[in-house]
Amino acid sequence: MATTRRSFIQRLGVAGGAGLAYSALASLELAPAAAADSFQPLTPRDRPGPGHRSVVVLGGGPAGLCSAYELRKAGYRVTLLEARQRPGGRVWSARGGTVETDLRGERQECRFSDGHHLNVGATRIPQDHLTLDYARELGVPIVPFGNQNANTYVRYAGPTSLNNKPIRYRQAKADLLGYVSELLAKATQRGSLDDTLSTEDKERLAEFLSSYGDLSSDGRYLGSDRRGYVTEPGAGTEFGEVGDPASLSETVRSGIGRNFAFDFGYDQAMQMLTVAGGMDQLHRAFARELGRDVIKYGAEVISCKNTPQGVTVEYKIDKRVRRIEADYVICTIPPHLVPRLQHNLSAEVVAALRTPVPLSSGKLGIEYRRRWWELDDRIYGGASNTDLDIAQIMYPSDNLHAKRGVVVGYYSTGPRHERFDVLNHAGRVAKALDEGAQIHGDKYRKGIAATFSGAWKQTRYSEGAWVSWPGGAEQSAAYRALLEPAGRIYFAGDHLSNAIAWQHGAFVSARAVVGQLNERAHR
Amino acid sequence: MATTRRSFIQRLGVAGGAGLAYSALASLELAPAAAADSFQPLTPRDRPGPGHRSVVVLGGGPAGLCSAYELRKAGYRVTLLEARQRPGGRVWSARGGTVETDLRGERQECRFSDGHHLNVGATRIPQDHLTLDYARELGVPIVPFGNQNANTYVRYAGPTSLNNKPIRYRQAKADLLGYVSELLAKATQRGSLDDTLSTEDKERLAEFLSSYGDLSSDGRYLGSDRRGYVTEPGAGTEFGEVGDPASLSETVRSGIGRNFAFDFGYDQAMQMLTVAGGMDQLHRAFARELGRDVIKYGAEVISCKNTPQGVTVEYKIDKRVRRIEADYVICTIPPHLVPRLQHNLSAEVVAALRTPVPLSSGKLGIEYRRRWWELDDRIYGGASNTDLDIAQIMYPSDNLHAKRGVVVGYYSTGPRHERFDVLNHAGRVAKALDEGAQIHGDKYRKGIAATFSGAWKQTRYSEGAWVSWPGGAEQSAAYRALLEPAGRIYFAGDHLSNAIAWQHGAFVSARAVVGQLNERAHR
Repeated sequence: MATTRRSFIQRLGVAGGAGLAYSALASLELAPAAAADSFQPLTPRDRPGPGHRSVVVLGGGPAGLCSAYELRKAGYRVTLLEARQRPGGRVWSARGGTVETDLRGERQECRFSDGHHLNVGATRIPQDHLTLDYARELGVPIVPFGNQNANTYVRYAGPTSLNNKPIRYRQAKADLLGYVSELLAKATQRGSLDDTLSTEDKERLAEFLSSYGDLSSDGRYLGSDRRGYVTEPGAGTEFGEVGDPASLSETVRSGIGRNFAFDFGYDQAMQMLTVAGGMDQLHRAFARELGRDVIKYGAEVISCKNTPQGVTVEYKIDKRVRRIEADYVICTIPPHLVPRLQHNLSAEVVAALRTPVPLSSGKLGIEYRRRWWELDDRIYGGASNTDLDIAQIMYPSDNLHAKRGVVVGYYSTGPRHERFDVLNHAGRVAKALDEGAQIHGDKYRKGIAATFSGAWKQTRYSEGAWVSWPGGAEQSAAYRALLEPAGRIYFAGDHLSNAIAWQHGAFVSARAVVGQLNERAHR
Repeated sequence: MATTRRSFIQRLGVAGGAGLAYSALASLELAPAAAADSFQPLTPRDRPGPGHRSVVVLGGGPAGLCSAYELRKAGYRVTLLEARQRPGGRVWSARGGTVETDLRGERQECRFSDGHHLNVGATRIPQDHLTLDYARELGVPIVPFGNQNANTYVRYAGPTSLNNKPIRYRQAKADLLGYVSELLAKATQRGSLDDTLSTEDKERLAEFLSSYGDLSSDGRYLGSDRRGYVTEPGAGTEFGEVGDPASLSETVRSGIGRNFAFDFGYDQAMQMLTVAGGMDQLHRAFARELGRDVIKYGAEVISCKNTPQGVTVEYKIDKRVRRIEADYVICTIPPHLVPRLQHNLSAEVVAALRTPVPLSSGKLGIEYRRRWWELDDRIYGGASNTDLDIAQIMYPSDNLHAKRGVVVGYYSTGPRHERFDVLNHAGRVAKALDEGAQIHGDKYRKGIAATFSGAWKQTRYSEGAWVSWPGGAEQSAAYRALLEPAGRIYFAGDHLSNAIAWQHGAFVSARAVVGQLNERAHR
C-alpha cells in the first residue's frame, strides 16, 4: 500500500534533515509525508564546494522555481532568469490589471472585478501531488475544487431524444448506470456468465447491481430520484415527482456516458483542490521566498553554452545584454524553444529537444454580473461536458453567492482548441457564446462584464500548453536523452516527468535534477 | 425540466413582490430562482388585520426561525420561544466553550481549538435545497463540502482478501466497476442480451463499458491506474507501477461496492456545500435578523392551548412562569415531545403526534494535534465507510493544512448508534477509537487534543435525531392530520416534509405553514 512506501520516504527525509519549513514538525512521528517521489531535501550540510556552487536556472515556472528553492536550502548561489515580468510560467492567473500581448500582437487587458480570476493554466491539484506539499511548506492556503457536479450538464450531438440538448449529469448517470445494472443482472440471471460466476458470486453481484442501479425488486431500472425531480419534494403532500427515463436503447445510443470515467481518473477523482485566490499565488510564494536577489524578471535568455570551466549564459533585460558565468545551468525552458537559443549542445540533444510535440490548449474566462448558474441552474462548481469545441464550461467553486463570477467558457485541447487558436479574442468569445448557449440558452450571452482568453500556442515564451512524446515517454530515446545533463546543463520540466501538464510533474522533475546535480557536486 | 418550473415560480415570486433582500435584484430577469417550493414570500402588503396579527412560535430550530422570519416580512408580531440558550435546534455546532448536559446528567465542555467545530447535527447542504437560498439572503458564506473522496477507505468484514482491512475507495471502484464492465461486455458479446439490444446498441454499449471499466482492447479488466499506484509516477524513468487487482470473484464477494451509490443520491451527490465556520452560523443569522424582541431563550414551554379567542402559551424562564395570549401558534417542537405539554389538543392529534418514531443518531468530534489524514493518507475531506458501528469517519473539508483538525469519529444512525447511546462520553470515545484504528491503525489513538460527542436521543429538547413515519409519510393518516392546524395551532418541522432530516425540510414546512396561516388571516 502506498502508505507504507510513504512512511519509508518520510523516514529518509527526516534522517537527511528535512530542511526549512519541515523543521518545525520536529520528531519522526510528526514529519510530513510530503514526498510522492524519493527526493531527499537538501540541508545546509549539503553546501557545495567551489566549482559547484553557482547555478543559473532558466525559466521561473514551477520547475525553475522549485529547482532554485530546493538548491537554496543547501546554500547554492542561484540566479533565476525569467523572461516574463511574473513568476509561474504556465501557472498563470489572470485578474483585473493583467495585460498580455500574444505572439500575433493582440493585446488583452483583463478587467475582472476584484477577487475574481481565471487560471489560464493549472487550475486544480490532485490529493497525491507534491503541489499540496509545497503549498503547505510555503503557507499558501488551499481550498476544495469542484471537479464533479451532478447538477451540471452533458450535451452531445446524436440521433436520440437525449442528444443535441443539455441533460443533467445526475440524470445521465442514473439512467445509463441503471440500465447497465439491469442488463448485467438480466444476463447473470439467464446464466450466460455461469462459467465465470459461482452461485455466491451471482448473489453478491445481484445485490450490488440492485443498489448501484437502483433497480426494482424484479431487477429492472424504472427511473430513480437520483436523476432529479420533475416536481421537487416539498412540504406536506408535495411528495415529489420523478420523471421517466428514456428507453434503454436511446440511453445507450445517446453516448451520454462518454465522460463518466472522468470521475475515476487517478488525477481527476474528487477531492480535487486548488490554491485560494488563484494558482499563481503558490508561485508568487516561491518567488517571495527566493527574493529579488535570485530572480531576474524580464530576462530573456539569448545563449546558454557549456564552457571548459562551467557554463555561460547571456540574457537581455531592457535590450541590454548581460552575461553570467556559473557552474551549472538548469534549463526549464519549454524543450521546443531551447534550440532557438545560441548554444553548443550536441546534435543529438537538439534532436531530442525537438522531439516532444507541443499541444494546443487554452481557456476563456467570462465574468458575468449575475451568478445565474447558481441562481437558475443550482450549479456550484464543476463542469458541463460537451462535444462542441468548447469541450466544457467550468463553474467557479470560489466566491459562492457573490454578485459576480468568472465562468470558464471553454477549456479544450488539441484540434478543438486549435479552432480557437486561429481566432482573435473577440472571435473566441463569439464562438464560445454560440456554443455555450447550446447548453445554457440565451442568458449565456447576457450580463457579461469582462472576458479574457489565453491560448498557449500563441503565448510568448510558452508556444504550447504542454507536450506529448510521440509513442510515449517510456519508449522514447529522446526523452531518456534529456534526463542526462548535456555537460553542465540539466533539463527539467513536466515534460521530463510522468505527470505531464501537472505542476507535480515539474516539481518531481526539478527535484530529480536538484538531486542529480547535488550528487555530482559532492562526487 | 426543473428549470422551467423554477422560472414559473420565480415569476410568481416577483409578481407578488419578492420582499426584503430580494428587492435588490430588481427585474424579472434578475430575480433569484430561490424557491424549490411554491412559496411566495410575504411582503408588507400582506400585513394582517387585528385578531390575526400575533403569532407565538414554539422552538427556534430551522422551522421556527424560518416561520418567524417569513411572518415578520408581512409585519406579524412574532414571539419565538426557545428552551435552549442558542438558536438552531438540531443544527448545532460545538466549538471551544460549548457546554451541554445530557438527559442522563453527563456534562461535556467542548475544548476544541479556535476555528474548529463539530456540526453535531446538520453538516451539509445539497445544491437544490432552500438552505442555500437562506444563506444567500442572510449573507452567510457557504463553501464546498467534500462528500466524496477517492482517497478515503472502505473497510468491511467478510471472507475475502479485500475484507477486514482498509481499501482505498479509488481501488474498490476501479476494480469492481472494471469487472462489472467486463462481465457485461462479455455477456453482450455472447449474444445473451440480443433480445434487448440491437447491433448498434451493442456497439455503443461496448464503447461505454470499455471507457467506464478501463477495459483492455479484448474487453478485460486487468487493473487500471484509477486504482492508484504501488509506485507513483515521478520524474524521468519513474513511470509508476499499478498494482494487480484481486480476482473477479473476490472483488464481487467482498461487498466493497455497497456504498458506491451514495455518490448518486439526489441529496448527497457532489457538489455538496456547507456554511463556513459551522452550520449554526446560518441560524445565528436568522436570530440576529429577528432580534431579542422576538426570540426568548431559555424559555421552556409548559402549555399550549386553543382558546375561544386565539391561543394561550405558558412558558418558564428561570423558573418564573409567563403567559402569552396570541392569535396563532406555530409549534415546531419535535412531535413526540408535544403531548408532554399541557394542551387541549384532540385525541386524534395527540395520536398523530405520537406516530412518527424518533431515530437514534449522533456524532463524535475528535480534535487531533496533527492532520495525519492529510499528511500520511493524502485525504482532504470526504468520509471512509465501514460496517462497524462508527459507520464512517469524516475528514474536514475546512482548515486544510492547518495544524489541527476535527475528525468526525462516527456518524451512525439506528441500531449502530444506539450502541453509542448507551455509553457515556468516555465510553463512546474508547469504542470509536477501537473501531477507527481498524481503518487507520494505531495513530488513530494518538495526538488527541479534545473530543465532544452529541447523541440526539440523549439530548434535552430533541430526544431523537429525526423521525420516521411507519409505512412512510405518503401512506400515513397521522402525517396528513398534522398538516392541518389544530384550531389555531399549526405544526411545522422537517417531520412534516419530504426532506426529513434536512434543514430544507424544516424550511419548506415552515413556509407552507406561513402560507396557510397568512391565507387564513386574509380570508
